[in-house]
Amino acid sequence: MIQLTLIQLDNYGRFTELLGVDRESDLQILQSELYADLQRMFALRRGLVFYNRFDNMLAVSNGISVKEHEMILRSVTRRYPVSISMGIGSAETPYEAQVLATKVLQETGSAQSETRKAILAQKSNDNGGQEYVQIAHIDINGFTSKVTDRESAYQSTYLIYSSTSILMRMFGDKGALLFFNGGDNFIAVCNGLKKPDFKEIFDRFEISMNLRLKAGIGFGKNALDALSRANIGLSLIREKKVNDVIFLNEEEML
Amino acid sequence: MIQLTLIQLDNYGRFTELLGVDRESDLQILQSELYADLQRMFALRRGLVFYNRFDNMLAVSNGISVKEHEMILRSVTRRYPVSISMGIGSAETPYEAQVLATKVLQETGSAQSETRKAILAQKSNDNGGQEYVQIAHIDINGFTSKVTDRESAYQSTYLIYSSTSILMRMFGDKGALLFFNGGDNFIAVCNGLKKPDFKEIFDRFEISMNLRLKAGIGFGKNALDALSRANIGLSLIREKKVNDVIFLNEEEML
Amino acid sequence: MIQLTLIQLDNYGRFTELLGVDRESDLQILQSELYADLQRMFALRRGLVFYNRFDNMLAVSNGISVKEHEMILRSVTRRYPVSISMGIGSAETPYEAQVLATKVLQETGSAQSETRKAILAQKSNDNGGQEYVQIAHIDINGFTSKVTDRESAYQSTYLIYSSTSILMRMFGDKGALLFFNGGDNFIAVCNGLKKPDFKEIFDRFEISMNLRLKAGIGFGKNALDALSRANIGLSLIREKKVNDVIFLNEEEML
Amino acid sequence: MIQLTLIQLDNYGRFTELLGVDRESDLQILQSELYADLQRMFALRRGLVFYNRFDNMLAVSNGISVKEHEMILRSVTRRYPVSISMGIGSAETPYEAQVLATKVLQETGSAQSETRKAILAQKSNDNGGQEYVQIAHIDINGFTSKVTDRESAYQSTYLIYSSTSILMRMFGDKGALLFFNGGDNFIAVCNGLKKPDFKEIFDRFEISMNLRLKAGIGFGKNALDALSRANIGLSLIREKKVNDVIFLNEEEML
Repeated sequence: MIQLTLIQLDNYGRFTELLGVDRESDLQILQSELYADLQRMFALRRGLVFYNRFDNMLAVSNGISVKEHEMILRSVTRRYPVSISMGIGSAETPYEAQVLATKVLQETGSAQSETRKAILAQKSNDNGGQEYVQIAHIDINGFTSKVTDRESAYQSTYLIYSSTSILMRMFGDKGALLFFNGGDNFIAVCNGLKKPDFKEIFDRFEISMNLRLKAGIGFGKNALDALSRANIGLSLIREKKVNDVIFLNEEEML
Repeated sequence: MIQLTLIQLDNYGRFTELLGVDRESDLQILQSELYADLQRMFALRRGLVFYNRFDNMLAVSNGISVKEHEMILRSVTRRYPVSISMGIGSAETPYEAQVLATKVLQETGSAQSETRKAILAQKSNDNGGQEYVQIAHIDINGFTSKVTDRESAYQSTYLIYSSTSILMRMFGDKGALLFFNGGDNFIAVCNGLKKPDFKEIFDRFEISMNLRLKAGIGFGKNALDALSRANIGLSLIREKKVNDVIFLNEEEML
Repeated sequence: MIQLTLIQLDNYGRFTELLGVDRESDLQILQSELYADLQRMFALRRGLVFYNRFDNMLAVSNGISVKEHEMILRSVTRRYPVSISMGIGSAETPYEAQVLATKVLQETGSAQSETRKAILAQKSNDNGGQEYVQIAHIDINGFTSKVTDRESAYQSTYLIYSSTSILMRMFGDKGALLFFNGGDNFIAVCNGLKKPDFKEIFDRFEISMNLRLKAGIGFGKNALDALSRANIGLSLIREKKVNDVIFLNEEEML
Repeated sequence: MIQLTLIQLDNYGRFTELLGVDRESDLQILQSELYADLQRMFALRRGLVFYNRFDNMLAVSNGISVKEHEMILRSVTRRYPVSISMGIGSAETPYEAQVLATKVLQETGSAQSETRKAILAQKSNDNGGQEYVQIAHIDINGFTSKVTDRESAYQSTYLIYSSTSILMRMFGDKGALLFFNGGDNFIAVCNGLKKPDFKEIFDRFEISMNLRLKAGIGFGKNALDALSRANIGLSLIREKKVNDVIFLNEEEML
């Protein structure tokens, strides 16, 4: 069972317009500080937040109770000029969990509603499954030498956004979620995916983008435990000790 | 003449690995606080920084001198465990300016070099042109009601990343730069583009994505002046006072 | 049993000198962001950090395990150019607890040692006592109307610093700790103090400063629970529902 | 002529009460992030902000125009749930300048007024004098070895707050302003003070506290230039190249 939390800024469009026309830099600062803030609070509970669309963030939140969500929500609401709402969803696949998290929040009102404020809603498809998170840390082989050090900054970024878009679809089709997380790095929340799934996605990606991916995949009761194991795997690949996809389970922990 | 600055974290991949396997949340916090920090410092000088690939940021920096760049660079280097380098490029088109900014930095060493640290480099194709920035603030018509309030959070994000990828290419082909900046909003740095260019891009985008864009476009001596005017334009469109693309020049300022 | 944590920046004086002569504003930013960061991480565990001497902070940390201290320590060390060390002390009185916290850290080396880095040390006088925190939230009657709105900003601040100095001594003499926490507000960590202790301190303070104090005092298993109750008490006094010193225990919780 | 800016949070007491009883950690985070934010924005213009009473900050703001103050004020108001007001005062001595800055703000309404919001007011005694700032960076000889490494953390802090209180009065009596700025460091804004003034203050302080001070004193057109020179002076003293009080003027700059 995996738990996803959708974090949505309340009536954010209207808020931004009220700030006047010279607002953009302040909004970008506000958004990224809010994200850093949320990341810190979820991470202390071993969760992980993705920046996503900035005004809509997604977090893997296994092990974080509704009450703890509420503490975070209230802390943010006290310190920012705009409030956030949260929807929590639990299901067998990450994709399904975020569908539930979104729906339960949508049912409380529109993201642009003037009355929906600082809501915390929850929905579960959980049939008693155990807490379980599978995460892949993915990067592109030789991206710095092949792209960053050769192409223009904009061209490099274009390749990354195209890659993200392609990977989001391919992982989504398999019930998983793919997020860009800086540089040439991606994180997939991928409960249920097996080695052949990665092989297939990486082969199709290479045909499409002419770039080769590698991935360490880890498991755990929460996001950070799973990701730590994924990182161990990725390090082993970078040191050429193993092939380009490796699954690390608890027994293999170094 | 437009001036672009490429901001690159030095040897960041190696830095991240040294932090150990349980590093990811701290890296995301570090990256987004650094971005907020840079945004604040550039914005005080009327510049604008885009988050871009997180470890490679791009800024419109007209009106910000080399000395002021250096003050920013040193302030960051004092307060973070990782240093940044900057390349500054000036040219007639935004695309060309970022090519120069990238090249001049690449010439000082690889992004993964162990010796390249806190470098500030500069290159100009400037033939005496005046400081001039043209910026478009673009959003998607009815995205909240059509997508955010109906589709899952992941699906909404996928549409935005696909849109970004498509728009990056279409604007890039015309010598402009397109950045996603949260929600369903995009900012194009687009010196030289005319109304028909936008019409063409927006029509082709609609065919591809079945979503309609609108844009306010502004001009100025620096990024924030240009963007403020673009925002005035976008407000007029939102209030249905004008059509879906409007150019605001200084005389039209309210 | 109360637990105090001393948080000390490692070899900070030397670090600051290496930053060059134009460093001061960056240091102030660094210090206050680090404090905010630590506050957020301790507060999520129901602890409370005092800014104290900025490079030496004190936290009430009941309920926060050694392992959780270590997670916080490592998170900071990853994101700042300077590391911190921590000493944890538990005892019957707050004063004694901070003595132990200081000693155990001093025994690992000087604050200016070049080798002491990111240390976590712990010492307890605990003879099996239960976790227990008593906190007083104190403010000065009518300070805004009498002082802030009449005197110069510097004179107001002088009165506050003089008051802090006097109160620190008077509370310290009774085994308690007094911290200034902004405006005309003070927080005393005061396990074991009774109503007559407050009466005595407030009377002596009034004779000395010609200003009258009031205080809500709360209890709890951790810092934030205790302080929340203290705040309820202070609100009741401000609404003139009770006298100028009130003790709130769990039964009295609203 | 020196320019001081008083920065005051508007109706802050009321704001804090509305946050509920479990607010304290969030307030401390809010205050220190706001301070870091203001420091960054003033420092980019070569000004310097002192944390002071947290809800009332003082800045040396020579060279920062009213318009630039307004940009800072608006940027803060957009990103925080509470607004700030500012009073700017110019005069021959720092003490007089902060009196003017306070008065001009007090005249616009009480700090607890419900209607006074985001005000910017200005008052000058300036009779055409040039921008000029004199700053002393002061520390205590051997504080780490004598106190930090020996005494308890609370006792060390008590000595610092007592010292601050004494020094605030002694400098204030001479028309200067003294601020504690972390560790065992103080900054005095001290236009007009001469070497004998420092000798006198330091001797009287030693009699009172049995601790010896040293100071580098610098001059400049703005706060950071003056403080940079003061730091050079302090380094020379620490290296035993000069005595315990040194004035650095522009010619002496290294």
